Amino acid sequence: RRARPVREVLFFPSRPCCIEALLAEAAEPGAPARPCPCPLPSGDTALSRLVRRLLSARRSLDLCLFAFSCPQLARAVQLLHRRGVRVRLVTDAQYMGLHGSQVGRLRHAGIQVRHDQHSGYMHHKFAIVDRRMLITGSLNWTSQAIQSNRENVLVVEDAEYVKAFQDEFERIWEEYNPTSYTFFPQRQ
Amino acid sequence: RRARPVREVLFFPSRPCCIEALLAEAAEPGAPARPCPCPLPSGDTALSRLVRRLLSARRSLDLCLFAFSCPQLARAVQLLHRRGVRVRLVTDAQYMGLHGSQVGRLRHAGIQVRHDQHSGYMHHKFAIVDRRMLITGSLNWTSQAIQSNRENVLVVEDAEYVKAFQDEFERIWEEYNPTSYTFFPQRQ
Repeated sequence: RRARPVREVLFFPSRPCCIEALLAEAAEPGAPARPCPCPLPSGDTALSRLVRRLLSARRSLDLCLFAFSCPQLARAVQLLHRRGVRVRLVTDAQYMGLHGSQVGRLRHAGIQVRHDQHSGYMHHKFAIVDRRMLITGSLNWTSQAIQSNRENVLVVEDAEYVKAFQDEFERIWEEYNPTSYTFFPQRQ
Repeated sequence: RRARPVREVLFFPSRPCCIEALLAEAAEPGAPARPCPCPLPSGDTALSRLVRRLLSARRSLDLCLFAFSCPQLARAVQLLHRRGVRVRLVTDAQYMGLHGSQVGRLRHAGIQVRHDQHSGYMHHKFAIVDRRMLITGSLNWTSQAIQSNRENVLVVEDAEYVKAFQDEFERIWEEYNPTSYTFFPQRQ
């Protein structure tokens, strides 16, 4: 039987929390839990809920993120990639090279990354899990935003909204295809 | 009969457009249209749709915006205020004083404004029309974002999502009450 569609709103800042148990369970389901030595609680927080939603991916994860520097979220994405989930990441050219960005690390791990060539920002902050669940809001995927800012994230399992964002993702993915790079500054 | 709930996704950048006809119709419904001398088309764009949604407010407009410097959106908000709609604006302390910010102008017009006192950003970008329609996404209300960035805005008329954001608005509105200002730098 089909479960009820997910409808969730997450507000940040999130209390600090340890997500090791979540990552371990996703890496090796059913394995005996090993307690993490870190002092953080492993409670139910906005961050842990976001990580849980991401780790539910089975086939694909499409990421369209202005800034991605949070190491915890990068570990979750890498784990999905290792598990065989098809991960694609679109990001902003000006921000991907900044100190602390996780984009290089993800690319190095074999994840496909594309970026804009424009002076305007690729300012989206959304993810689509299995072409079925949309995760979108004001939150850039940075530790500062997660821990310090007032932010929102909507989790929506609704075919109409998901399709609009999936189509936008595919448009951007094609537009930022490296075979179309000009290697010249554009006038915009 | 109740109309079907609004469900809309707007993607930016928006083509430049003239919104004078929209503002004039909202200021004086049914008045004969006077053609605007500006060279911009008055077509159907992401910006004109956003303005239309805002101008549909009859009783209240709650704004929770990191940055607000777009003069066209500020004119729409001022028009609603003059029409007797109860407008409240929460914004970010670091951004509200920047060059081009419309916050001072709105405050001067008599609109209630509150801001944070924190080092973290008040990074939300949402509006709630008549406690019934939620407008939220990645879009800061700046001309640069509207004209140059890849951005999204969801328009959602769904009681569950609206309530979550309305509650967050009321929490922030109380927390940023000026009677609670400390006038000392906070250690955070």
